[in-house]
Amino acid sequence: MSTTTNPETTTSIVAESSFLQELVRQVRAQDHYGVYRNWADELVLSSFVVSKEKKRQISVDGDVESGTQLRILCFYRAIAACIEKETGQLCQVVIDLSHEGFGWALVWTGRLMVVSATLRDAQRFGYDSLEKLATQGEKVTKSGIEIIQRFPEVARF
Amino acid sequence: MSTTTNPETTTSIVAESSFLQELVRQVRAQDHYGVYRNWADELVLSSFVVSKEKKRQISVDGDVESGTQLRILCFYRAIAACIEKETGQLCQVVIDLSHEGFGWALVWTGRLMVVSATLRDAQRFGYDSLEKLATQGEKVTKSGIEIIQRFPEVARF
Repeated sequence: MSTTTNPETTTSIVAESSFLQELVRQVRAQDHYGVYRNWADELVLSSFVVSKEKKRQISVDGDVESGTQLRILCFYRAIAACIEKETGQLCQVVIDLSHEGFGWALVWTGRLMVVSATLRDAQRFGYDSLEKLATQGEKVTKSGIEIIQRFPEVARF
Repeated sequence: MSTTTNPETTTSIVAESSFLQELVRQVRAQDHYGVYRNWADELVLSSFVVSKEKKRQISVDGDVESGTQLRILCFYRAIAACIEKETGQLCQVVIDLSHEGFGWALVWTGRLMVVSATLRDAQRFGYDSLEKLATQGEKVTKSGIEIIQRFPEVARF
């Protein structure tokens, strides 16, 4: 909710990216008080955009804020949901963060670890732009789908 | 640290179980202040023994105590260490617990999920006796080794 991106470049990006659409769904699912109800999708995702300059201003000394933790969880849940849609395999997500902002983001199905990302400086989680957010989400989703196609027996174990 | 078990039945059990020996190592590794330094191995493990009656007395309404969380982590770390020794595969451990005592215990290597246990009522984590603790730890270790032998390519991915 810190920076709103330029509407001219973002009005259509959510409509064009099934990953961003899924991410919007994940964030809205957490919006128990309806704060985002009347917000455009781009605005809902604006807190995922953190400029390099802004990142430098965020201290990595303290705990990871609960809002940031929730954003990380939504990001990997959106990836899991996209992988599920494509493969039909139910995926589980766990985010494990230490107080210092280090940790793991895990997505698995059956006995197959579909995504295992190490997190560093999680306090600064975010991307330069919605485009980069979409690209990164789609890249991780694609590699997850590929590993399921490669080891289907383990995914179904 | 609540119940000490009968020394007559336990004096040799740690010596006979490589799993319990590993568990003792894991617990002592967390003993930063040397509280357990002069304790016998059986005494170090005594907090893993929780009788059925004692379990009933532990409320599952609140958070899982940090001591209990650490015991769960030590239990699965000991399993991971035993699997590593047998297979040479480096294993990672994550325990993910909700405030209600539900969650996951995960052990993985490469892209293979070696152990994925759902935790329930984690506030009451413990076993009837050191024998049962050893049996359960060895059973989970064995199944982990078997799945690595079955899918070596995924474990090394």
